[in-house]
Amino acid sequence: MNKIIFGIDVGGTTVKLGVFSENFELIEKWEIKTRLVDNGVYILDDISLAINSKMEELLIDKKDVIGVGIGIPGPALDDGTVGPCDNLGWGVFNLQDKLSVLLNGIKVKVSNDANIAALGEMWNGGNTYEKNIVLVTLGTGVGGGIIIDGKILNGRTGSAGEIGHIKMSETETRQCTCGKYGCLEQYASATGIVMRCEDVLKSDNRLSLLRNLNKITAKDIFACAKKNDAIAIELVEFLAEMLGKALTYIACTIDPDVFIIGGGVSNTGDMLIELIKKHYVNNTFHDTKNVNFRLAKLGNDAGIFGAIKLFT
Amino acid sequence: MNKIIFGIDVGGTTVKLGVFSENFELIEKWEIKTRLVDNGVYILDDISLAINSKMEELLIDKKDVIGVGIGIPGPALDDGTVGPCDNLGWGVFNLQDKLSVLLNGIKVKVSNDANIAALGEMWNGGNTYEKNIVLVTLGTGVGGGIIIDGKILNGRTGSAGEIGHIKMSETETRQCTCGKYGCLEQYASATGIVMRCEDVLKSDNRLSLLRNLNKITAKDIFACAKKNDAIAIELVEFLAEMLGKALTYIACTIDPDVFIIGGGVSNTGDMLIELIKKHYVNNTFHDTKNVNFRLAKLGNDAGIFGAIKLFT
Repeated sequence: MNKIIFGIDVGGTTVKLGVFSENFELIEKWEIKTRLVDNGVYILDDISLAINSKMEELLIDKKDVIGVGIGIPGPALDDGTVGPCDNLGWGVFNLQDKLSVLLNGIKVKVSNDANIAALGEMWNGGNTYEKNIVLVTLGTGVGGGIIIDGKILNGRTGSAGEIGHIKMSETETRQCTCGKYGCLEQYASATGIVMRCEDVLKSDNRLSLLRNLNKITAKDIFACAKKNDAIAIELVEFLAEMLGKALTYIACTIDPDVFIIGGGVSNTGDMLIELIKKHYVNNTFHDTKNVNFRLAKLGNDAGIFGAIKLFT
Repeated sequence: MNKIIFGIDVGGTTVKLGVFSENFELIEKWEIKTRLVDNGVYILDDISLAINSKMEELLIDKKDVIGVGIGIPGPALDDGTVGPCDNLGWGVFNLQDKLSVLLNGIKVKVSNDANIAALGEMWNGGNTYEKNIVLVTLGTGVGGGIIIDGKILNGRTGSAGEIGHIKMSETETRQCTCGKYGCLEQYASATGIVMRCEDVLKSDNRLSLLRNLNKITAKDIFACAKKNDAIAIELVEFLAEMLGKALTYIACTIDPDVFIIGGGVSNTGDMLIELIKKHYVNNTFHDTKNVNFRLAKLGNDAGIFGAIKLFT
């Protein structure tokens, strides 16, 4: 029997699961619902049940499972301690130990979801010579995954890559979810650009396609920018400026090989990359100007692909 | 015969050399002048001559030399390529290969001087459990050395740790040595605080001890701050604010175990650390608030101690 690895990506709505060959080829992927009731106490039970069922179905013995790699939406330390994960309801506990017990001793490795997505993009982005990578995920929030020398950087408290909470403004009056004021996430996330849009539409009288919409989404703003709507263009430009500047801070710190831009907001494509790059180049230290920028390739699969790479 | 290692730290004025036991104990240290004439073409010859003389003096054979670790004031890549080093006059070349030839094949490893100082502070600071470290050197400029998982991070272009060029102001009219405007170095270095002092003394009429001095140095400003001079206190507070904020960007990126503050400006001691920490804590992401701050311990010896650690 050939050996297999499981890759798991725990999100706030669904848990994505994949079973892979020992050569890291995807055999099958599926999803289960994330049961958030009772502070997420059933999530690990559901995952272990899904894995055990799949092993039975594929006639796989425990000894043929190399391990289970798992990404979670919150801090994770090198020793397997995770949490708190606010959107799952989890406190702090050792996930590796707990899940391994539920799986009768199968080895478990855990990391933060942005970090494993970065690992996935590194291995499956086709450029294996890049070992220092920053994945920026632009979605409801702004997340970051940092890979140094081919390995995930968790940091002291699991907060490495919390680039959404780099402070970009001294004058912000709205509070970020983290409690601070003026975080990157408040300007460069889907939520952030929509809030700014509402402010701008209220505060000036210019015509805009955006005024025709009932409920504006980030996607709408990007679509209107592509149609040359002046307000939409300003909003996208501002997002790119904030993000481009924040990436210069990161470049002066770790001088990565590449910035990979992913998450829902990045679906707008090359236009966004070019704008971010413009503001980055205008503000960064000379030697770091030529860093690569590219869009993430794996979409929602980055997590399960990265999770199995915890076993390399 | 026991084996030995050489540690070299090339500065703009002197080259510091140390010979160490294979257990990393310092046997002897000395200095030679850095010959800057003809674009620094004699510097490596002088170093190889110094090493060969020391080997003769100590009756050490080539086979008993584990290697020569060397730090240089400029970018260095993992493959031994260095430069350009503006203040030595060096262009880009492979220093490891060149110096190794001059030393009849003894193995040479090179890195940036701030990076090897960080490595030195990690090993000799007495806390070997800290593996992710940021050394901040406050001197004529602001330098940084980044250690991840116990190893120097050079980055793609050797610019990892160029934290002095994190852009802190959008309104600066003076140009930084790097060509940009508003770099951290312009506010948090000895040069920076003196320039700001001159501006402030010109622009207001408050009494200050600083007005009694002919040529003001950073040391004077810190001394006057300790004597409760209002302008000096404001200047030191501003330096600490800029640095504290820049360190929050770094914390959201790599979440280090410790920030070590070194360089001439840091000689003012705990007062400065406390001020930097105050501004850091007020501005950083909640999980990263409790990071350690401490003063560098090795002073001018950090380079030679770090250089030998390239061989661990």
